[in-house]
Amino acid sequence: MAEPAPVLTLGVVLYDQFEMLDAYGPMEMFAWVGDGLEIVTVAERAGPVAASRGPRTVADHSFEDCPPLDLVLVPGGIGTLAALESEKLADFLRRRAESARVTMSVCTGSALLAKAGLLDGLRATSNKQFFDLSVRQSDRVEWIPEARWVDADRMATSSGVSAGMDMALAVIERLFSKEDADRICALTEYTRHLDPDRDPFAKHLNEMMPA
Amino acid sequence: MAEPAPVLTLGVVLYDQFEMLDAYGPMEMFAWVGDGLEIVTVAERAGPVAASRGPRTVADHSFEDCPPLDLVLVPGGIGTLAALESEKLADFLRRRAESARVTMSVCTGSALLAKAGLLDGLRATSNKQFFDLSVRQSDRVEWIPEARWVDADRMATSSGVSAGMDMALAVIERLFSKEDADRICALTEYTRHLDPDRDPFAKHLNEMMPA
Repeated sequence: MAEPAPVLTLGVVLYDQFEMLDAYGPMEMFAWVGDGLEIVTVAERAGPVAASRGPRTVADHSFEDCPPLDLVLVPGGIGTLAALESEKLADFLRRRAESARVTMSVCTGSALLAKAGLLDGLRATSNKQFFDLSVRQSDRVEWIPEARWVDADRMATSSGVSAGMDMALAVIERLFSKEDADRICALTEYTRHLDPDRDPFAKHLNEMMPA
Repeated sequence: MAEPAPVLTLGVVLYDQFEMLDAYGPMEMFAWVGDGLEIVTVAERAGPVAASRGPRTVADHSFEDCPPLDLVLVPGGIGTLAALESEKLADFLRRRAESARVTMSVCTGSALLAKAGLLDGLRATSNKQFFDLSVRQSDRVEWIPEARWVDADRMATSSGVSAGMDMALAVIERLFSKEDADRICALTEYTRHLDPDRDPFAKHLNEMMPA
C-alpha cells in the first residue's frame, strides 16, 4: 500500500495587536491547499489573542505545547513594537525556524525575524511605511526597499498586509505546484501580484515612522 | 462645543465553518476607517466560532446581547449550508437589517440574506461557483450572474471571498470618502477592483455545484 502523502503543518504565530489580514490573508490561501496542509495557531499562551482593531482569535497552542511545524507564519501589526521585547517569542522563532521548511513574515513581522537573527546574510523586505523598524533590528540583512515579497528559500518576507497573500501563493507554487496556486486564486477570486520585484506601494517609504 | 462625530458600529456575523477571508478581508478594510468605526463580532452564542479549515474567532456578543449595529456583514463559506437552517439567524438578520444603514454579504452569505427575504425586489450577486445556492433561496431577487459586487444602497452583496474587500472599499467610499478608501488601499497595500460590473471569475459559474 502506498503511504499517504505527509501533511504539512502551518503554524501561525499570534501576539496581542497583530494585523488581521497579515495572518488571515495567507491562512486563507494555505487553507485551500486541502488535505495536504493543516493550520494551527500558536502564541505565548494558548487562548484568545486580540487583533489590532479587530476580534480575538484563539491560539490553539502555547509556545511550549506547539506541535512540530513545517511552515511558520509571523504577521506584523502595531503589536510588533511590544512583541520585539519578548525573548520568549524570539527563542520560539529561532527554534522553530531551524526545523521548518519555510518561515514567513508579513509586514513588520520581518522585524521579529530580524531581531531573532533569522534573516542575517539573507535578502529580505518589510512594510515600506515602517521599513526602518525592520532595518534597525539587524545590519546583517540585505534589506530590499522595493519588493512585493522576497523568497529566500528557507525564509520568505513580504511587504505590508495584502502582500502576504501574494507571498503565500508564491510559496504554495514552490512547495506544491503552479496548478495549486492558480486553483486557489480562482476559488478565492483573488487577482494576485505575480512579480515579486514590482512594488507599487514602495513610494510610501518610511512615511509612517516617527521623525 | 462641537459634538464628536458618531461612531458607526460594524457587526460581523459569525457561524460555524464561515470562510476566513470573507469576514477578515472586509474587517481589515473597515478597521482602517479609524475612530469613526468600531467592529464587533456576533453569533448565536458568544464565544469561539470555528472558521472553515482555520482557527476559532471569538464572537463578542450573542444575538440577544448584541449592541445596535449601523453596518452588518455576513460572510459565506461551507457553513452557509447549515446556517440556512437556522431560524434564529434569519430572524436576527431581518431585525438588524431593518435598522442598519448597510447590510453586506460576501460569497454565499447572500444566500442567508435571500432566505431571510432581505434581497427581495433588489439586484444582488453571490459567488458564481455556488450561484444556484443563492438563487434557490428566493425568486424575487434580480440575481446578477456577472458582478464583482452589487451595491443596492441598504443591501450590498459581493462575489466570492476576495471580492468582499472591493465591496467593503466601495461602501467605505460611499459612507466616508474616496480619500478614505484610497488611504486604506495604500495602508493595506491592496490593489482593488474598481469596477463592480467586471467579474473575471464568473466563467466558473456553477462548476462547483452538484449536478
